This record gives sequence, C-alpha cells and structure tokens, in this order.
Amino acid sequence: MSPRDPDCIFCKILADEIPSARVHEDEHTIAFLDLFPLAPGHTLLIPRDHHELLTDMPDETMAALGRVLPRLARAVVAATGAEGFNIFQTNGACSGQVVPHVHVHVIPRAPEDGLGFRWRAGSYEEGEMADWQEKIAAALET
Amino acid sequence: MSPRDPDCIFCKILADEIPSARVHEDEHTIAFLDLFPLAPGHTLLIPRDHHELLTDMPDETMAALGRVLPRLARAVVAATGAEGFNIFQTNGACSGQVVPHVHVHVIPRAPEDGLGFRWRAGSYEEGEMADWQEKIAAALET
Repeated sequence: MSPRDPDCIFCKILADEIPSARVHEDEHTIAFLDLFPLAPGHTLLIPRDHHELLTDMPDETMAALGRVLPRLARAVVAATGAEGFNIFQTNGACSGQVVPHVHVHVIPRAPEDGLGFRWRAGSYEEGEMADWQEKIAAALET
Repeated sequence: MSPRDPDCIFCKILADEIPSARVHEDEHTIAFLDLFPLAPGHTLLIPRDHHELLTDMPDETMAALGRVLPRLARAVVAATGAEGFNIFQTNGACSGQVVPHVHVHVIPRAPEDGLGFRWRAGSYEEGEMADWQEKIAAALET
C-alpha cells in the first residue's frame, strides 16, 4: 500500500485528474457514482489512501469507511427510492475486482431486477465445520 | 431497532440459545461460520445490537464492524488459502436478505467457482448522472 498509486484510476479520481460525480467526501473517504451502474444511483465509496485489498487496510481506515456507510446508504435509498440495496466489495481478480483500489459498491435493488449474488449454498460434513472454526479462530489470534 | 429481538435467529445465536461456530467476538460484534456456506470458511460478521438494515445502524456500530473486518478477512484468507474474497451484505427482501439482522458475508473465492455478483452494467444518458449526483448529495446534506 502507498498513499497514492500514480497508475490507479481511483487515485486519479481522488486527485481530480479524472472527473467523477462525487456525492460525498471526508478526511478518509470519497464517494462517487459508478460510471457503469447496475442500477441508477449505484455508488462507490473508497478510501483516500491506496490499498489494493480490504485485507491491506488499517483498522482505523476501514472503521472510517464503515462510519460513513450507513449515512451514504440512507442517501442513496432516499434519492433512488430503492426497496433494498446490497453492499458488495471485491478482493482479487477471481472475486471480480477490476480496479485494484478498495471500493465498496452501494447497489440499489428492486424486486425481480435480476441482480444479486449467485447463491449456491453448500453444507459441511460432520466435524468439518469445527475444523474451519478452529483454523479461522487460530488465524485471528496471530 | 432494539438491543435484542426475541424472534431473531441471530439474536438467539448471540444469546447462545442456538449454537454457532464462533470465530470472533468483541464488545460490538461477533463472527461465526455460515451454516450453508458458498465456500468452506464462509463467515458472517454481525453487530451484537439488533438492526434490520445497514441504514438503521448507528455510525459508531458500523465503524466498530468496519474496524474488525480487515482482521477477520485476513484470518479467513489465511485459514482457507482463498485467492480472493467478496464482502457482501443484503438489505431488504428484494436484495436477498433472509435474516433481518445486519450480517456481513465474508465469502472466500477461487477462479471459476461460479460465484460472484450478477454484473449487468448499464450507462447513463447525458445529464442523467449529474441529476443522480445532485439528488444523492442533497440527501446526504439532510
């Protein structure tokens, strides 16, 4: 991570080298309309500092992003009249990430809009869940 | 919102009335394995207080949730070896929400796993983007 990556399109938007339709800015974050919206009012919230992945973010930067998210989502819902919305965020090419600067999608939703996450729920074999629990809890301790 | 909803399955998990495979807990949040995982290690992070929608959440509760999310995601990635991951959150039935207690999905991803958000990007007519920008920015002011 670095405060700014000169090749990053979102860093260029932050520096006003590329225009964007900003709706919010504060000390740690800005929000602007996605140029290719899944629904009108589809908004991106990004940290000012360049971090490729959420896992690269300092706790307090992600806390600052979390702090503004309810207010931003309320504004998107109020402006669009959306019946619901999704928060979505990608990390790594295989997850759908295109721009390597953390960005949180606020996606207005409507009944039968054909959007949403591809849901293909599985289940755990006996004992398997406890194994994953132990592994993740152990990784959290380190 | 209320601190606890007696009919809510996640409030019951918080109260240990229903078992769960917890991997994290702090003053404001807990995290546990999704019973019906999209991928092994699929984890849910929830606030202790009962809020149906992200738009119902106090700023500081969402900040607390944001603060722990990078650490939780790093643990999920470390434990699963996932090449990437998605953060996903639903608000309202039309967005895919089933349990009406805010929950943030941490979903491990792999190339060609068939998951991800259904992406059907649109575009704005001339002037339309500026209109949405104005509406959302105005809603943020109020």
